[in-house]
Parts: sequence; structure tokens; C-alpha cells
Amino acid sequence: MGLAASLDANLPEKPETTKRAGGETALKALSDLLADDMLACNRAVVARMDSPVPLIPQLAAHLVAAGGKRLRPLLTLASARLCGYVPSAGEAPRHVNLAACVEFIHTATLLHDDVVDESALRRGLASANAVFGNKASVLVGDFLFARSFQLMTEDGSLDVMAILSKAAATIAEGEVLQMATQNDLSTSMEKYLEVIHGKTAALFAAACRVGAVVAGRPQHEADALDAYGTNLGMAFQLVDDSLDYAADQRLLGKTVGDDFREGKITLPVLAAYHAGSAADRVFWRRVIEDSAQEPDDLDHALSLIAETEAIATTQRHAAAYADRACEALSIFPDGEVRRLLSEVAAYTVSRGR
Amino acid sequence: MGLAASLDANLPEKPETTKRAGGETALKALSDLLADDMLACNRAVVARMDSPVPLIPQLAAHLVAAGGKRLRPLLTLASARLCGYVPSAGEAPRHVNLAACVEFIHTATLLHDDVVDESALRRGLASANAVFGNKASVLVGDFLFARSFQLMTEDGSLDVMAILSKAAATIAEGEVLQMATQNDLSTSMEKYLEVIHGKTAALFAAACRVGAVVAGRPQHEADALDAYGTNLGMAFQLVDDSLDYAADQRLLGKTVGDDFREGKITLPVLAAYHAGSAADRVFWRRVIEDSAQEPDDLDHALSLIAETEAIATTQRHAAAYADRACEALSIFPDGEVRRLLSEVAAYTVSRGR
Repeated sequence: MGLAASLDANLPEKPETTKRAGGETALKALSDLLADDMLACNRAVVARMDSPVPLIPQLAAHLVAAGGKRLRPLLTLASARLCGYVPSAGEAPRHVNLAACVEFIHTATLLHDDVVDESALRRGLASANAVFGNKASVLVGDFLFARSFQLMTEDGSLDVMAILSKAAATIAEGEVLQMATQNDLSTSMEKYLEVIHGKTAALFAAACRVGAVVAGRPQHEADALDAYGTNLGMAFQLVDDSLDYAADQRLLGKTVGDDFREGKITLPVLAAYHAGSAADRVFWRRVIEDSAQEPDDLDHALSLIAETEAIATTQRHAAAYADRACEALSIFPDGEVRRLLSEVAAYTVSRGR
Repeated sequence: MGLAASLDANLPEKPETTKRAGGETALKALSDLLADDMLACNRAVVARMDSPVPLIPQLAAHLVAAGGKRLRPLLTLASARLCGYVPSAGEAPRHVNLAACVEFIHTATLLHDDVVDESALRRGLASANAVFGNKASVLVGDFLFARSFQLMTEDGSLDVMAILSKAAATIAEGEVLQMATQNDLSTSMEKYLEVIHGKTAALFAAACRVGAVVAGRPQHEADALDAYGTNLGMAFQLVDDSLDYAADQRLLGKTVGDDFREGKITLPVLAAYHAGSAADRVFWRRVIEDSAQEPDDLDHALSLIAETEAIATTQRHAAAYADRACEALSIFPDGEVRRLLSEVAAYTVSRGR
């Protein structure tokens, strides 16, 4: 099956149109709605990344303070709220502590993602971990990972531990698979989707499922939230992969082309490669498979991606996953949290436009 | 307090002389006694490191097959046996699965220890992970770490999870502290002992404690096994650190000087530095603190270490810890497992002679 057919075969079934108005502010609106929980989660993160070894909180703070959107813990908190979780009187707020676990696992994977190989160093990619070095990134990541399991042990739910330890294993598998597909233009669409499921969607799914579990909701609700998280994560990563080739982002001064320089196999590249001419394919093989890149190659790659509408193809897939994410929420009664979660899915796609 | 006084202050109290006859074969004798359990543990390790992503079992097998003595899982199995653990009819052999968890955590730390920094690469130390690269070492380590928590979740004991997740956090702290002390000759004896406790003794202790927990033994027995493991681990690492400067090992064709080249702060170096002349200290500062090493420097370092009896000092500390390990077992009734565990402690020290 060629990539074009494969692309369609891999589109989630029955994509539906979702209202996207106001999508861009959904994430902020959801954070605001859950502001108390988010604040408590931030406090838990800071309190529990402490260690008598000073470099650990220093390096962790470097990432945690940089912060970003805290999307993954927000998903745990929102899912718990959607499922009507209320901490028992005198009980620690389980959803808050588990949201911190999710953030620790995510931060650990970010730190480990910073680790570069000798070959990457040769290509000048050392900046990602330039401040602290490979070894510190690995060890502090290990600490946060271990700490997240200490937190889970304190929480005491074997169900939660099964969900998050499985997600952690799946993330590692996804990242290894990504390494194995690097520089390989024969990577199939299926394999690419498996990579982004592992590296991104698995933790989104687990973060959501945990919310249902702390609320003691039945299996089908946990499954629905898992499906929401999975599809949201797929959409999120597809958009992320498209942003790495978004020429207009470049005009805004944002970094473009990291994936290109690393020879990472993402949908924009696969789509452009398969839709390209014979000459285009020679180009792609040289820059991606042989890693023989020259200064103007990124510009040429961006123009080929524009010609072949590879970004539009990627966005179309992302939109279909976002629709599936919204659809998964339909078993829950209508309400503000459900509405905002749907809008977050829409926002995820719109940020690439 | 000078290092000499500090050395004595840090010697475990009341060292006792322990019979060392036959020590060298104790490890094999213990493995033979527990051969069925060890075989089952090896099977569990191989079965559970499997993954649909081929690179994972490939790389893991590279380390697991290389094997070594499987000392840590052996400690779990022996401790469980010492505590009279018998799997319930129809129950999975918990000690076997938890021994596999311990081995996974150890293998993950080995893989992560292989990760090198750009500076190390510059000094030509890339060989440790030359086969697969930094990134693969990190990710497969992460997978094994996650998998060990999946296994613990299946086992279902929160006590075990608390022990092993805390050990994992302590290992990471110890390794970070080791990084922080690297190239720093002002490192105190206390700090050095904290490093080797974290990087080595913590997992030895946890491996032993888990054996008492699966057997459902009272706290003081778990504490005694923890003390055995801690002291054994300290002895083990002290000997390991001395072997890296053991000139006669070099004659046997074994690698000597890795710690030296990395500027790692270990007791042989600290003892030689503090016992050395002013000229010797200038030498040590150049090679360890400034990392300015020349071809003949290792030979000179070995001769300074011999002159100052720094290996004997290190061995004396190791022997004292080994004695404390044996002493910790005294609350258990005499028997073959207890006797062999004592001999393992003796063997640990004798391998450095």
C-alpha cells in the first residue's frame, strides 16, 4: 500500500466537525477553572522534587519553572473533576498528587530527550543539554521518575500504578522506535503513528484515565477518558511535527528545522517525500537518509513541503484525531469541563494554523 | 578534621574478625544452593525484558547476557530463603519476580552509567556505550526501570514498592552527588561515603530487605537484612574503587585507571592525596582537578598509591564494613544460608587482595 492510500487508511474513522470558536483560550479557561488544583499541583511538584543533593532541585527547577502549559497534569485534574472526584474529608487530594506524578514522568522524559549522541554533538546539537550535560540530564530524570513512583506508592492505588508504569514503559518503547526509524524514509505511516502514540499519546491517555480511577468511576468512563487522551495526544504530536516545518513560525523568530537536522521521520517529511518528484526524492534521501545537509537545504525542504501540501496533510490528520477526542467525551453529561476539554482538542489543532 | 582522623571516625564501630576461609567460593556456593530460584529469576528477566520494539531486548540482552554474578537478585533470593519464605500453593514465586525487579533496576543504572558527556567524549571515553550510543542506553534503561515497576505492581505489595522506589531515588541522588564531587579533591570522607551508599549500598540493602518483606517477617529482621545489605554494599564499592588502582590487576590484563581518567573521587585517591607530600599534591591536583593528564601519569599515580598504602587503607575500611555485614546477620539462627551470606561478605573483601 502506497503512502497516499496508507494515509487515508490510517485516518481515524468518521471524523466529525467540531466547533472551534474560542479554542485558543480553552487551555487558559480550563487552567483558570481548576486554578486551585493547579496551584496545589505546582506546590506538590516543587515540594517533592526537593533533595539533599542540591543539583537535583536546581536542574529540575530549570525545567519545571520553565513550566510551559502543564498540559498533562491539567488533564488529570480536569478528568478527575469531570468524573466528580471530591477528596474525602481529611484525605490528601489524590488527583493533585497524581497530577504531580504525571508531571514528573513527563519532565523525566524531557530530560532524557535532551541526551544526545556523539553523532548529534558532531552536528552541533549539544545546545539542548548545554547547561548541565548529558549525565546530569539522565540522573535527574531518573530521580524524578523514581520520585513519581514514591508518590504513587504513597497514594496506594495499584490500578494507578499499573496505568502509569505501563505508560512509562510505552513511552520508552516509542522513543526507541523513533530512534530506529530515524533517517529511514521507508518508515511506514503505521510505524510513524506507533512512534507518536508511544512518545506522546500514551502519557496523555494515562493522565486522563487516572482521573477516572481516583473518582472510582466505572471502566467505560475510564476507557472514554483514555480514548480522549490518546486522540488528543496524537493530534498534539502531529501538530508539533508540522510546526517544526512551519515556515511562518520561522518568520516569528521561532526555531524551525530541528527535526530536519536530526533526520527525524515525521509526517511532513513522509508526505512530502511520497508526493515528490524523482528529483525531490533524491534530495530527501540525501538530507534525511545520508544526513548530508548544506546551508540552503532547510529552505528547499520547506518549499517542497509547501508544494506538496504536506503540512495540510498533517493538519488534516491532527484534526481527525481531535474530532475523535471530542467524540470520546460524548458519554459524559454536558458541562463546563467537558466543553473546555473539547475546546482544548480544537485548540491543539488550531495552534498549528 | 583531617582526612586521617576522618577516616578513623568513619570506620564502622567495633569491627570484628570474621572467618574468611573458603570465602572466594561462597558466591558460587550460594548460587548453587539457590540454583532453582536463580534459574527462575533468569527466566523472568529474559521473559519480561521483551518488547515489540526489537532494539530493547537486543540491547538489554547485551547486558543481561553478559550477566556477571547477578549478585543483587541473589541477595533477594537468599534473604527470602533465610527468612523461610515459601511461595503459597498456586501463588507466583514472589521472591523470584522481585529479584528480577532488582536486576532490572540495577541494569537500568548500568545503562545510564554508560551515558557520557561531551567532555568525556573528548577525552576518548566513548567506548562504554560505543555499540549502541548514549540515547539508546538511556531509553532502554528507562524501559527496564518502568518494567520493574510494572512487575512490582503485579506483585501488589506497597511495602515492596516503597522500598524499591526509595532505593531508586537514592541511587539517582548518589550518582548526582558523585558527579558533583568529580574532580574535587576537597571532597570529605563523609561525602565520599554518602556517594557510595547511594550508588551501591542502597540497592544492596533494598534487595535484602525485600526478602524479609515477602516472607512476612517482623521489622527487626527486615532491618537486620537491610543492615547486612548496606554494609555489604559499602564493602563491595570500596573494593571496587580499590581495584581500579590495583596494579596487579593490570598485570592480569584487566582495565585499571578508568576512575583516574574520569577524575572520579574515590578513597584510594583521597587517601594518597592526604598522605602525600606537597609535590604529590601538586600532581594530584593537576591530574584530578585540572584533568590535565599525560601518558605516564597513571603509572605515577599507582606508585604514589602504593607508597601511601592507600589501597590498604581502602581495604581496611572494606573489611570493617564486611564485618558489620556479618554481625547484622547474628539475629538469625545459624544455618547454611546465613553462613554463606557471611562468606559472601568475606569474599567481597578478599577479591581485592
